[in-house]
Amino acid sequence: MSATDTLDKTGTQTSAVRLGDLETPCLVLDADRMDRNIARLRDRIAGLGVTLRPHLKTAKSVEVARRVMATSEGPATVSTLKEAEFFADAGVRDIIYAVGIAPWKLAKVIELRKRGVDLAVVLDTVELAQAVAAASRESGMAIPALIEIDCDGHRSGVLPRDSERLLAIGKALVEGGELRGVLTHAGGSYAARGEEALRNAAEEERASVVNAAAILRDAGLPCPVVSVGSTPTAHHATDLTGVTEVRAGVFVFFDLVMTGIGICTVDDIAISVLATVIGHQREKGWILVDAGWMAMSQDRGTAKQVVNQGYGVVCKCDGTPYADLILADANQEHGIIMVRPGSDGTLPDLAIGDRVRILPNHACATGAQHRRYNVVHGTSDVVTGEWQRFGGW
Amino acid sequence: MSATDTLDKTGTQTSAVRLGDLETPCLVLDADRMDRNIARLRDRIAGLGVTLRPHLKTAKSVEVARRVMATSEGPATVSTLKEAEFFADAGVRDIIYAVGIAPWKLAKVIELRKRGVDLAVVLDTVELAQAVAAASRESGMAIPALIEIDCDGHRSGVLPRDSERLLAIGKALVEGGELRGVLTHAGGSYAARGEEALRNAAEEERASVVNAAAILRDAGLPCPVVSVGSTPTAHHATDLTGVTEVRAGVFVFFDLVMTGIGICTVDDIAISVLATVIGHQREKGWILVDAGWMAMSQDRGTAKQVVNQGYGVVCKCDGTPYADLILADANQEHGIIMVRPGSDGTLPDLAIGDRVRILPNHACATGAQHRRYNVVHGTSDVVTGEWQRFGGW
Repeated sequence: MSATDTLDKTGTQTSAVRLGDLETPCLVLDADRMDRNIARLRDRIAGLGVTLRPHLKTAKSVEVARRVMATSEGPATVSTLKEAEFFADAGVRDIIYAVGIAPWKLAKVIELRKRGVDLAVVLDTVELAQAVAAASRESGMAIPALIEIDCDGHRSGVLPRDSERLLAIGKALVEGGELRGVLTHAGGSYAARGEEALRNAAEEERASVVNAAAILRDAGLPCPVVSVGSTPTAHHATDLTGVTEVRAGVFVFFDLVMTGIGICTVDDIAISVLATVIGHQREKGWILVDAGWMAMSQDRGTAKQVVNQGYGVVCKCDGTPYADLILADANQEHGIIMVRPGSDGTLPDLAIGDRVRILPNHACATGAQHRRYNVVHGTSDVVTGEWQRFGGW
Repeated sequence: MSATDTLDKTGTQTSAVRLGDLETPCLVLDADRMDRNIARLRDRIAGLGVTLRPHLKTAKSVEVARRVMATSEGPATVSTLKEAEFFADAGVRDIIYAVGIAPWKLAKVIELRKRGVDLAVVLDTVELAQAVAAASRESGMAIPALIEIDCDGHRSGVLPRDSERLLAIGKALVEGGELRGVLTHAGGSYAARGEEALRNAAEEERASVVNAAAILRDAGLPCPVVSVGSTPTAHHATDLTGVTEVRAGVFVFFDLVMTGIGICTVDDIAISVLATVIGHQREKGWILVDAGWMAMSQDRGTAKQVVNQGYGVVCKCDGTPYADLILADANQEHGIIMVRPGSDGTLPDLAIGDRVRILPNHACATGAQHRRYNVVHGTSDVVTGEWQRFGGW
């Protein structure tokens, strides 16, 4: 029953494994949709004259990374040191670790840099800049760091016009370390609604780092990299003057949250969870499947949007959504399929043993619950490969 | 920096690894608290004259399973076939797979039974009973099945007084398969508030299966096992007449949802996530740590309770909670610590690099984000072992 039985080590198909042969629940990746999503953002970013530095935290897979990066060596963005190590082992050489560094992690950063990986870190305090400079001096290897800028108040970072803090960090860094540039993430754009709000979020994101870069340069400090990034702003920026690179992650797969924001349609969503029908509560209009929150994650990102998709949108095995059918509730290994409350949808006639595919609210969260992608192409049910993904720290 | 460097293969300590030496984020298990939690429910259930069949889906660890099971061979409950296979490999011989069986899974059930594992399945339809009977006849091995009873309308199962459906399932099963008994899970008890409501939920759970068993027996069908279970009802049942066994899982670790229901205190919660401070937004009263939703899970189970604990309660490294300090928000690898809105708590003076432990909303969900437990005892920061846990299907 396992796809591995009939795939060779390189993932090449040696006989036709079909979705109906897979054990459930499992993760399915439509590589055709993924390729379209990658081409769409790559073309867009190239048209704006900047570099795309994809965030590999969404896929955590060498096969996906090689398709989404401009070259086999990068550039790339990661969210954990484990990702940095994993992708370094796979040959990636240009990486930003885009979560504020902790002091104890610097030894590992130096280790990776000694292996020839240009790994840069991110920070937003003088204290950490001093720690990076000290570790650089001690190791005889200047660690490059980007100063994180807070463009919309949603998380970490220095305010873009806080010259005092920016310069103090910059000056502390260059005492042995390397000031590589400035970086921001418009996390607030996930709450933006409508084209204009998204364009404004993109412009605010751009302006914040361009401002911060100007403050550093005016003081004689270097700032070669000016990095922005989030999937909503990457797809709505119309002018990236002053920016050198765009980071984005979820665009490679897309998900229902992105659909709700208006960045994609459900037909663009490249990953789904394959599940088997295990029961009915007919008088309640429920179909039970063997994919619960363990398979879908507990991300309920669409609950705050106009259309609440529950734990996901239910599709036929060929990837076509049933009208208004959602995974309305979930236990650890049980999912409850219902027609969306208040809609005109009707419950399909699914028998025990039938299979469905469920589109996720959040590709990063759902992907993290699985260890492999079962690769299909478009509406075909032939599984052409099995790609490993990793997790943990 | 890794605990494995100084622990031998059996997890025995060969030199003192301390919490401060571990890489973050990581999962910490206080074995003293766990042992107390296990003893408390074991004594309670023994006092009620029934068997405890612990649910291993919470821990997914051989070391924890051996401490929580009555014998090294079981009895035990699991939520996936992978758990069944994993624990069978570790010598467990008496297992109920307590999620409605899918037809394709029966081949694997037979495989495990041929290895000497008394694995029983659960179902609630005539169709599946016929499939189990047919697979039993074909394999020459009667597969035991329990009929799932719906005691509170929260998920799957046959209504406890639906004689027609119960008898039809039972009669279909015994045509080759084995009718092992009836089983229910009072999932609705998670929403019960107050001692009386919890006692009522326990009685409703008991009565549902005792009724269903009587219907089967009155028709001359066998029903040796009468199985109930949920942590809230297991801790509140006062009379289990007619019940043969109690299943429960989360009691082994407990969590903030159980604290909110009133089953335990925060001082009973045995697992936590160790995190490192990576920044501050002082004007907002935020402390940033390197544990986001990837380390905590996205379970927000306490959001519906009287006290919303955000993504978790923040403790000192010795396991003592800071007053009213919670992980108020989380991104994938960032957590934002804040004083609980509306409380009198004050933000502790935590410097970059300092460590905290964060108690989870839901032990099953947070555990699933990790691959090992770092074992400590009480307030000591010495890590005495590293226990593996597994995930996936």
